[in-house]
Amino acid sequence: MEDVQNRPDHREIPIDRVGVTNLSYPIIVWDRQNEKQSTVADVTLSVALPHHFKGTHMSRFLEVLNDHRGEITIRTLPVIIHELKERLDCEAAQMEVRFPYFLEREAPATGAKSLLDYQGCFRGETTDEGDEFVLGVTVPVTSLCPCSKEISDYGAHNQRSLVTIEIKMASDEEKDFVWMEELIEIAEDASSCPIYPLLKRPDEKHVTMQAYDKPQFVEDITRDVATVLMADERIRWFMVNCRNEESIHNHDAFATIEWTRP
Amino acid sequence: MEDVQNRPDHREIPIDRVGVTNLSYPIIVWDRQNEKQSTVADVTLSVALPHHFKGTHMSRFLEVLNDHRGEITIRTLPVIIHELKERLDCEAAQMEVRFPYFLEREAPATGAKSLLDYQGCFRGETTDEGDEFVLGVTVPVTSLCPCSKEISDYGAHNQRSLVTIEIKMASDEEKDFVWMEELIEIAEDASSCPIYPLLKRPDEKHVTMQAYDKPQFVEDITRDVATVLMADERIRWFMVNCRNEESIHNHDAFATIEWTRP
Amino acid sequence: MEDVQNRPDHREIPIDRVGVTNLSYPIIVWDRQNEKQSTVADVTLSVALPHHFKGTHMSRFLEVLNDHRGEITIRTLPVIIHELKERLDCEAAQMEVRFPYFLEREAPATGAKSLLDYQGCFRGETTDEGDEFVLGVTVPVTSLCPCSKEISDYGAHNQRSLVTIEIKMASDEEKDFVWMEELIEIAEDASSCPIYPLLKRPDEKHVTMQAYDKPQFVEDITRDVATVLMADERIRWFMVNCRNEESIHNHDAFATIEWTRP
Amino acid sequence: MEDVQNRPDHREIPIDRVGVTNLSYPIIVWDRQNEKQSTVADVTLSVALPHHFKGTHMSRFLEVLNDHRGEITIRTLPVIIHELKERLDCEAAQMEVRFPYFLEREAPATGAKSLLDYQGCFRGETTDEGDEFVLGVTVPVTSLCPCSKEISDYGAHNQRSLVTIEIKMASDEEKDFVWMEELIEIAEDASSCPIYPLLKRPDEKHVTMQAYDKPQFVEDITRDVATVLMADERIRWFMVNCRNEESIHNHDAFATIEWTRP
Repeated sequence: MEDVQNRPDHREIPIDRVGVTNLSYPIIVWDRQNEKQSTVADVTLSVALPHHFKGTHMSRFLEVLNDHRGEITIRTLPVIIHELKERLDCEAAQMEVRFPYFLEREAPATGAKSLLDYQGCFRGETTDEGDEFVLGVTVPVTSLCPCSKEISDYGAHNQRSLVTIEIKMASDEEKDFVWMEELIEIAEDASSCPIYPLLKRPDEKHVTMQAYDKPQFVEDITRDVATVLMADERIRWFMVNCRNEESIHNHDAFATIEWTRP
Repeated sequence: MEDVQNRPDHREIPIDRVGVTNLSYPIIVWDRQNEKQSTVADVTLSVALPHHFKGTHMSRFLEVLNDHRGEITIRTLPVIIHELKERLDCEAAQMEVRFPYFLEREAPATGAKSLLDYQGCFRGETTDEGDEFVLGVTVPVTSLCPCSKEISDYGAHNQRSLVTIEIKMASDEEKDFVWMEELIEIAEDASSCPIYPLLKRPDEKHVTMQAYDKPQFVEDITRDVATVLMADERIRWFMVNCRNEESIHNHDAFATIEWTRP
Repeated sequence: MEDVQNRPDHREIPIDRVGVTNLSYPIIVWDRQNEKQSTVADVTLSVALPHHFKGTHMSRFLEVLNDHRGEITIRTLPVIIHELKERLDCEAAQMEVRFPYFLEREAPATGAKSLLDYQGCFRGETTDEGDEFVLGVTVPVTSLCPCSKEISDYGAHNQRSLVTIEIKMASDEEKDFVWMEELIEIAEDASSCPIYPLLKRPDEKHVTMQAYDKPQFVEDITRDVATVLMADERIRWFMVNCRNEESIHNHDAFATIEWTRP
Repeated sequence: MEDVQNRPDHREIPIDRVGVTNLSYPIIVWDRQNEKQSTVADVTLSVALPHHFKGTHMSRFLEVLNDHRGEITIRTLPVIIHELKERLDCEAAQMEVRFPYFLEREAPATGAKSLLDYQGCFRGETTDEGDEFVLGVTVPVTSLCPCSKEISDYGAHNQRSLVTIEIKMASDEEKDFVWMEELIEIAEDASSCPIYPLLKRPDEKHVTMQAYDKPQFVEDITRDVATVLMADERIRWFMVNCRNEESIHNHDAFATIEWTRP
């Protein structure tokens, strides 16, 4: 049976990335408490295709992924992309996984516990020049508008906001590792108030007043996250984005900062 | 060339609905001011298929739609589904169109004008027993939580909410016609405050305080819309749904009422 | 602290459904092999609200859900909605969970194994008149057009299709239970060819020819599923929908049958 | 009324982009036949915020957009972002619009006419160093797998694919302008077969055989588009991506090339 993909190609055009995407896959991630968490990821796997090959072998992406069924983390991701690079005999390989990630939250007054969903992201690339990894997370928070509070006799509009943080770490030594949980705390601290799935009345009173006491523009949340990340020597690059699903408009407000340690 | 679809089918099973969906199509709708509005619709067209036919002729749906290119409204929709029923020689035909619909809004203090997007919906079915039509609209509004206001010393959480109203009219006489604009007003009146794309600072002060002055649960908005619709003799059936994109949670709250005039 | 939701309401309008939706939650389901599967569900919980109450207590939905953290299946769902009905003191309670569900598939020629994602659905309602449950699943398959094959000298267009089956069972006795896996088999058998995540070249040859050997219209798939379900005495109601993401169009074709055992 | 946004900010952190997004807005674009086309755009507007300002004035984005209500094209976009830059007194301003775009297609055998929807995109940025513009389009096509055809005794799997092309032009002189229609033709020519909304039986025979006669991997489509764009001196940068919604899998295959004229 002929291997059509292996035929020579004469267009002389290498392909930056070729692979599979929108692949749904059950994965296990480890949280900071050293416990396993089962979740479902949206996976993209790709390689660079040299100009002389007609096509890549898509089934090998699945084979490599299956070999690692069980655990896909920011720690095992390097192994997977190295394997992809070798198995597909190419100069570069990339992988991205996105997945819901759950942490138990305690309501601020009653301590009632419930699970809040964040969106995690691992992304990595290996080339002949080395590896590059990104750890990311999207955190839902409450934001309350400082202008609305300042100019109004009472009340202030507030809304659900989504804070996305992506980082590259300065070193891959164990002691310099940054946890997704740390990024989540930074995002929540920069907001007007964290979000909780389960709030009893004393909790609702607490979060209402906490948000009113700390009004934050979309610019403030973005800058406050940036300030903390810049001060953290373990981080050599970051991107932070905050998007407010405005309660007084039918569109969103957003702010973005990208930064590389000088 | 054989007509495979026309072959007899021996499974003895009629099909309730067969047709095309997720069809993007530019349409023109008329607004209450008697002006044309160009928009882009998501269209579904279907018919009932008798048990003795193997398949329907999908291309005819497109032909009927093309014949009416230009104007698809709650007024022309009956013509289209009657044509579908005839052209495809079947006992029933259905059509649904969903589309963004824009109205100019004046900011409450400065009068600054801008265009707000609503989601309109026309749906119709013709059978041997008669026709049935639904007019629908989804309206973005602000809702402010009465419980949060009541129990907190200051502030109150609020959020973007989506109010969906669908109605069947009691008569198809011109004088009994209900406009989408009327449904939009009913939804906005039931909310804590309407939404505007463009708000200057005096406007932002106005909407902040207006929402605080009129706290409404998701249940209140739904019931207040229902109360107005029940009192309107032009309406013989309705469904109202309100969904709050909660600013203190990462999930939504909702309430739904369906009603038929006794 | 006043319980605003408990205040009397004078609009005299009961609410059909009020609750929480778009709630992301990790769940465990059991598969036919009696093994646990961890996945992430999109959850909706609601109750009927009597006309005399102003609001429902949204936090109790989360509490009931948390009490059952661990296992949400078509078997435990009745327990949850009965608890909701009691805890919220209402005449009816409803729950719906939707989640990706994975099964291992063996490639048809090489036997290479991989995990395919289906979309599962459990839905239930309890009222004073009794309970009602729906089990549903969406199955991706390949469909190949009989008309295209018949009229062309060679080739035939084919595409990814999504077959959705929802059923109500005739009895809730253990021996009459219908598994999601059975519905998946019925959908795949009715298609031109099942779908596999991992196919080596001999497998790709196999599925290409299998699909060409069994051309099926969207109507055929829907009717063939219906035929099998009608013959199964364990099923007293079903809805089957097939949607073809047509490879020759930018819109989809669909067919739907709903049926109740006479 | 105090202008909170104008307050000084002491964090010393400039913001790369701050503005509004997910804004739905009716626009008019011009097509190559010099005719106006009304459509509905998803708009993002942003500016760079200097480190010394606390916030931007979100309402001004809407005002600038409203001033240009009527026509937003790759030609008027520069005017809008220059105005944004001035009105908001900043070093950079950006705009992106995405919208469905319709062209009349003639079925290949019968000539039956219908409207096919493409996704257009205009994107621009102005900084103190100059302007940069991107024209983009996403084109639905049919792709048929060369490997499947080669190794099978008959048939070949095929599917809907989405080809996205983004370009920067080498000059802004009228004679060097590249039309979205030209990019659409390039994408369709590189595919196994174009897509049409309306196909009668002789057309269906035609496209079935045309696709079978021209099998193209996702890599082939991407490279063939790249080859044409590289040869076109009017283009100084491009990105091409093809994504196949595989009919034999439940995931997609993709390939991407980004290129800058040396």
